[in-house]
Amino acid sequence: MYALLVSGQQPSHAYARAGVDLDAREALVSRFAELVKTARRPEVIADVGPFAGLFKLGAYREPVLVASTDSVGTKIKLAALAGRFDSPGHDIVNHCVNDILPSGAEPLFFLDYIGNCGLPDQAKADLVRGCVEACHAAGCSLLGGETADMPGTYREGDLDLVGFIVGVVERAALIDGSAIREGDVLLGLHSNGLHTNGYSLVRKLFRIGIDEDPAAERERMNQNYPGLEGTLGEALLVPHRSYLDVVRPALPLLRGIAHITGGGIEGNVPRVLPAGLAARIDRSAWRVPPIFRIIQEEGGIDDAEMYRAFNMGLGMVLAVAPEDAGEVQSRIPEAFVCGQVVAGEGVVWE
Amino acid sequence: MYALLVSGQQPSHAYARAGVDLDAREALVSRFAELVKTARRPEVIADVGPFAGLFKLGAYREPVLVASTDSVGTKIKLAALAGRFDSPGHDIVNHCVNDILPSGAEPLFFLDYIGNCGLPDQAKADLVRGCVEACHAAGCSLLGGETADMPGTYREGDLDLVGFIVGVVERAALIDGSAIREGDVLLGLHSNGLHTNGYSLVRKLFRIGIDEDPAAERERMNQNYPGLEGTLGEALLVPHRSYLDVVRPALPLLRGIAHITGGGIEGNVPRVLPAGLAARIDRSAWRVPPIFRIIQEEGGIDDAEMYRAFNMGLGMVLAVAPEDAGEVQSRIPEAFVCGQVVAGEGVVWE
Repeated sequence: MYALLVSGQQPSHAYARAGVDLDAREALVSRFAELVKTARRPEVIADVGPFAGLFKLGAYREPVLVASTDSVGTKIKLAALAGRFDSPGHDIVNHCVNDILPSGAEPLFFLDYIGNCGLPDQAKADLVRGCVEACHAAGCSLLGGETADMPGTYREGDLDLVGFIVGVVERAALIDGSAIREGDVLLGLHSNGLHTNGYSLVRKLFRIGIDEDPAAERERMNQNYPGLEGTLGEALLVPHRSYLDVVRPALPLLRGIAHITGGGIEGNVPRVLPAGLAARIDRSAWRVPPIFRIIQEEGGIDDAEMYRAFNMGLGMVLAVAPEDAGEVQSRIPEAFVCGQVVAGEGVVWE
Repeated sequence: MYALLVSGQQPSHAYARAGVDLDAREALVSRFAELVKTARRPEVIADVGPFAGLFKLGAYREPVLVASTDSVGTKIKLAALAGRFDSPGHDIVNHCVNDILPSGAEPLFFLDYIGNCGLPDQAKADLVRGCVEACHAAGCSLLGGETADMPGTYREGDLDLVGFIVGVVERAALIDGSAIREGDVLLGLHSNGLHTNGYSLVRKLFRIGIDEDPAAERERMNQNYPGLEGTLGEALLVPHRSYLDVVRPALPLLRGIAHITGGGIEGNVPRVLPAGLAARIDRSAWRVPPIFRIIQEEGGIDDAEMYRAFNMGLGMVLAVAPEDAGEVQSRIPEAFVCGQVVAGEGVVWE
């Protein structure tokens, strides 16, 4: 069952008077329900619980539930400008999956919230379809959601996509960084773009997704830049990748995992380190993708600022014991050494 | 730990340039963290998991997780107009608690999402404080949240407050309406106002919270109406009550529970009934609170429409076997007989 409700809206004529378009609402809900069936784990108890989603937890010794909520931020503005409503669902699901992965958690279920004003039904269906596809890929259920049509709160044609995820990890397998020691190896995993951070700045710099002149903004999105495969818009809209599948085989060997989100490497790697330890990061260990250099040049932004505002090509950092580094790299072939845990505080750039 | 993040925002000068005010962000996060400590169950694992909230599930035989998401809809516009930012937290937490209660679930944890443009820090802190107070009252943890400053998506000064809740119920104690039989008694519980439904219509009718002329709108909010204790604004902003404490003692005796939200009695009671059964509802069984009559007169709305758009004074309906009705009423003294389960479909008005 998919408890999709349209917030504050009743199928009444009075509501139509209030400016809320209820046409085809039932059809939309049925479409959502069909979509959702494709991302359903066997633990989902269907056809009961009309006001909530039900998920029967399997057998665990000491289950720890790991929960997180986030939105895709203003990346959604660029998606709307480009008329691409399937990718934000991937962004938000994968972002949420990556936020519970640092605890070693396997995703169980996800719920979406779409707040909007005047979004066409097709766009809403595409948003949910994106969530469904990403949930399916992560082996997690889309357990429910809410679509709220709120003229007066959102600007006409604007929307916010919020996600909520719950995962589980055995207490004994919980990863919390406390086992990290001086001398541990830091392994990096490539990002595939900006993920979901830095878009307010990017929108301002390139004057895109700012509700000024959509045609001109779309034109700027369609520009090509030296070193960039495809257009600027395509580079900026690549969906946030999920690290679940690549990281999972190595989870038992990992002492700490940092998801590089807002605040960049400096803002996120130290969060998993015990007191008195720092991350020495070797910036030459990976190639910064062209999109970041293009942003940097456009804004005349110095390196320090860039590394605070963006992931700069590093999407996840794993801390492992030196003796396990080789084994982890064999289980995660793309993992590369990007630094080391040293005495100190914060990040030491090398 | 409270994984509050400000979406897409990094503590960087570049971000300040992008129009995002980061002043006192750290102070705000600390304030949130302090607030949140007052709504923490012993199952919360603190100080680990920097990217998500951790909750150790207790001992259950066959735990079913019950999850729901919702927003307070455009009631938030009236709260903002009145400058009352503590009550929406109560609205959203209690709404969520009431949405998982029909499954028989006890709330475990809640996460909040605040999307906004230009909301003062004090308002954000008040929103979180409201959530904390309501979580505390429901015996549930505020496990995390996200505050996203999104100029360009929300209108200046506007916001959306979204809640996510997870509760648990033993599989054997799950309430799903399947045990409901013809002849079962329907017991009603009073609402304490509009709860969180019908606000788009109300805003339009009274021309309040419509971003036209705040001073004039506030004046209209401050008007008195015959039969109304306090002002119109006060009546409209009464926080959605939680039914958890009153319903809990009778849960083992209940065959079905309907939370009367969008769609009113007709839209919600039939959702819990097995096929072939209808709810015969006696409208004379309770007194419709004055606020609904005032709305009806203002809009010249007929009864049928009113009962579809609003709860009309009935916030929750419980289905019980005839032989248990007396016992349930002794455990829930405020419960009153409001109808009966009969053969048919939908709602039969009496």
